[in-house]
Amino acid sequence: MSLRDKIGAFIARPAFRNSILGVILFNAIILGLETSKPLMEAMGPLLITLDSLCLAVFVFEIIAKLYVQRGRFFSDGWNIFDFVIVGIALVPAAQGLAVLRALRILRLLRVVSVAPSLRRVIEGLINALPGMGSVFLLMALVFYIGAVMATKLFGTAFPEWFGTLGKSGYSLFQIMTLESWSMGIVRPVMEVFPYAWMFFVPFILLTTFVVLNLVVGLVVNSMQDAHHVEAEAETGNYRDEVLARLADIEKLLKEQTPR
Amino acid sequence: MSLRDKIGAFIARPAFRNSILGVILFNAIILGLETSKPLMEAMGPLLITLDSLCLAVFVFEIIAKLYVQRGRFFSDGWNIFDFVIVGIALVPAAQGLAVLRALRILRLLRVVSVAPSLRRVIEGLINALPGMGSVFLLMALVFYIGAVMATKLFGTAFPEWFGTLGKSGYSLFQIMTLESWSMGIVRPVMEVFPYAWMFFVPFILLTTFVVLNLVVGLVVNSMQDAHHVEAEAETGNYRDEVLARLADIEKLLKEQTPR
Amino acid sequence: MSLRDKIGAFIARPAFRNSILGVILFNAIILGLETSKPLMEAMGPLLITLDSLCLAVFVFEIIAKLYVQRGRFFSDGWNIFDFVIVGIALVPAAQGLAVLRALRILRLLRVVSVAPSLRRVIEGLINALPGMGSVFLLMALVFYIGAVMATKLFGTAFPEWFGTLGKSGYSLFQIMTLESWSMGIVRPVMEVFPYAWMFFVPFILLTTFVVLNLVVGLVVNSMQDAHHVEAEAETGNYRDEVLARLADIEKLLKEQTPR
Amino acid sequence: MSLRDKIGAFIARPAFRNSILGVILFNAIILGLETSKPLMEAMGPLLITLDSLCLAVFVFEIIAKLYVQRGRFFSDGWNIFDFVIVGIALVPAAQGLAVLRALRILRLLRVVSVAPSLRRVIEGLINALPGMGSVFLLMALVFYIGAVMATKLFGTAFPEWFGTLGKSGYSLFQIMTLESWSMGIVRPVMEVFPYAWMFFVPFILLTTFVVLNLVVGLVVNSMQDAHHVEAEAETGNYRDEVLARLADIEKLLKEQTPR
Repeated sequence: MSLRDKIGAFIARPAFRNSILGVILFNAIILGLETSKPLMEAMGPLLITLDSLCLAVFVFEIIAKLYVQRGRFFSDGWNIFDFVIVGIALVPAAQGLAVLRALRILRLLRVVSVAPSLRRVIEGLINALPGMGSVFLLMALVFYIGAVMATKLFGTAFPEWFGTLGKSGYSLFQIMTLESWSMGIVRPVMEVFPYAWMFFVPFILLTTFVVLNLVVGLVVNSMQDAHHVEAEAETGNYRDEVLARLADIEKLLKEQTPR
Repeated sequence: MSLRDKIGAFIARPAFRNSILGVILFNAIILGLETSKPLMEAMGPLLITLDSLCLAVFVFEIIAKLYVQRGRFFSDGWNIFDFVIVGIALVPAAQGLAVLRALRILRLLRVVSVAPSLRRVIEGLINALPGMGSVFLLMALVFYIGAVMATKLFGTAFPEWFGTLGKSGYSLFQIMTLESWSMGIVRPVMEVFPYAWMFFVPFILLTTFVVLNLVVGLVVNSMQDAHHVEAEAETGNYRDEVLARLADIEKLLKEQTPR
Repeated sequence: MSLRDKIGAFIARPAFRNSILGVILFNAIILGLETSKPLMEAMGPLLITLDSLCLAVFVFEIIAKLYVQRGRFFSDGWNIFDFVIVGIALVPAAQGLAVLRALRILRLLRVVSVAPSLRRVIEGLINALPGMGSVFLLMALVFYIGAVMATKLFGTAFPEWFGTLGKSGYSLFQIMTLESWSMGIVRPVMEVFPYAWMFFVPFILLTTFVVLNLVVGLVVNSMQDAHHVEAEAETGNYRDEVLARLADIEKLLKEQTPR
Repeated sequence: MSLRDKIGAFIARPAFRNSILGVILFNAIILGLETSKPLMEAMGPLLITLDSLCLAVFVFEIIAKLYVQRGRFFSDGWNIFDFVIVGIALVPAAQGLAVLRALRILRLLRVVSVAPSLRRVIEGLINALPGMGSVFLLMALVFYIGAVMATKLFGTAFPEWFGTLGKSGYSLFQIMTLESWSMGIVRPVMEVFPYAWMFFVPFILLTTFVVLNLVVGLVVNSMQDAHHVEAEAETGNYRDEVLARLADIEKLLKEQTPR
């Protein structure tokens, strides 16, 4: 048994997977504690050291997996997911990019790749996406058209909300979520353009209707899948038996019939 | 082969459809860039020229289709849709109607008429509408009654929100979307009319319940359709086979029976 | 043919029903116009006269129905509905009750009792209610307990929002609709009681979850009904045929079998 | 018949259950009246005495049940529920803990344990929970990661909203409910960090999508259960009959066939 096989067997053991899960959860607590200023002042170096140790464990795990699985490593989406997440944490953030430091917490997402039940939920969510592709495309079209129109119509008078395509898009997203759409945005706009509601109310109705259809589609698809699986399992046996018995009877009858 | 047939064959080619799709997407980018003031100052004439070129392509496409299909052109809803949208873009907007200029962006909606997958989504949405006709009528009734009552009750004290039927309707729509209904509208109203909640809370419960029923109806209808199609395809074969075999058996038996 | 039969036949004619519908819609316009102050100043007496005429038509219709149907009149819920609505409009509102004048607009609800399609929608909504009785009861319980707790805990510090049971109930309803719950209510409360979120966040989660279950229950019930009706109609024929044929075959076989 | 059996029979009588329900509802009214300051000044001692009497009834009921059922008492979840709720009410609240006094109102929850229809609703809600376990875990993960990131990124600039993990969690919950997310939180944050929307908009989309999937899952599960029960009852008889008849026919044929 080569070293590679030994490491492979070691990695495949449930105890190894559970230890990694433990390290992730321990790391989660460390990263949470790091957000507390008094704690960081009191024992900052310790927290950072423990954090680095956890990271080291993840790096060694990935190196071990790479060594064992080689080329196959990158054929599994979850491996790529782990690789990217640990990679982000390794980028030297000392150069002042606070955002990169904040992205380190994404390491906790490794829980998803390690815990099978969470993995299934995520895979379910991702599988639901393609069926909604056309609706997303339509939504993007509605938003692009809405943003161009809002920028052209209200951009000069309300540069804060509709000054550029990007600002209009953000404001329209806010309006779609119905957050302060009237008191915050549309009523002030209507003081300058009294007919502005003719743009915003249809926009709300349209986007709400599209979102609603997306939800309905999701429900119908899930039901369909569930029903199909159940129906297959349940009525399959019964139907097979009916057809088999009918075939038997017909065969018996044909044997009896004098030719 | 006449010129008309040649043009017809040319229009029917997938390459033609894809080129039109390309022109629409190119036009979308141009129309987006036109919203940027610095870009318009730097290269405004170029953008406007490119925009006009795209429009020219659409006009020629429609003329070609009209020439080929003649009377049949207007029997397809999507052709009428294209015709109106391109027509809007041709209305001379120089006379100061900024709204008409903004409506030009609707040209991008042509993506929907060209891309079959989006077309299906829209057709699905439109097909869902008639089943909801009665609910819409009921909603309109609730809004009209609510607007008249709100105008009569609160119009004098709150002319800004309930001064006219139109303002009341808009405010009630805002309240139905639950946007700032309490802190923004009802609490101030209740300082003058302490029992105003007896109008607004039932209005919210009623409209929410009607919307909810609309959603439920939509889900049930979609499920019904999906189930019907699937059941047809799936159990149809089985049932046909059972009935055919039963008929065979009965025929065999009748032949055997001594008359 | 007695006078009563003649009137009964006249009332039963579709033309009569349509005329009543026309009067209701005409009345709707009149009541809408009455909300406009300039119009009332210009032609107020005319509008009020037309309004009274419409009301007179409704009164005569109900008297005619009462004369024809006598005791049976009150056995139909929609007749009682019409009776009450027209009754409200007859209460003399001159004594200064503006609310009663505003309630006159409810007359438009008669559209529902006259138009069969709207009638079905309302009957559908009402039929959906009993299945939700227990959930409503539970919701009332949650609101009552929540209101008592909120009044006891925050009543002294925030008398405007939680001063009495009624005010607490209203504020909790606002919070359940998620309107300004955090920025408007809970954040200010948390400045005095830092742990107030331990009351409000569970309240939101609980009420949302209950509402969600109500929606799910509604969907499942509607699906069940629709599925049942469809399944009955669709598979009924097939099943009857299978059973009939099986019975035939068995009978034929038994006849053949030598006893 | 021992005393224990006599008490057991007495407790089991529907009249006893209904009396307890009456006491709970009477107690509900008393607890509601206690929130009114003028009433407490006028007849405070009376209300408090009546409240204590109700509590005494509950205590005696539980003691009686404990005496009759002994060990089995704690094997029923609803008994434990009653025990804890009455226990909370007995904790001496004189030591200034207003919260404990407010928790007394939870006694009304006993309605749920006494009324069977409410009991079923609650049991239904609780049964729906385990199926959503993975989604809840995922949500907790998203919130924890989001809170750590928000605290690291915006904590220094907006200590009021994102100063600690707890504050960030609360603010993210508010943002998930879409309450004032843009006008109240994200727009002010974007004035300091212009790219803050890159954190908040995906957070909203992700949490909304997860909640949506939870709803869809709930609908599908409920449908599945309902469908299963119905299908079982409805098609079971038909299928049994078909199979029985087929078996009969086959037996008859085999008897006929000359061996």
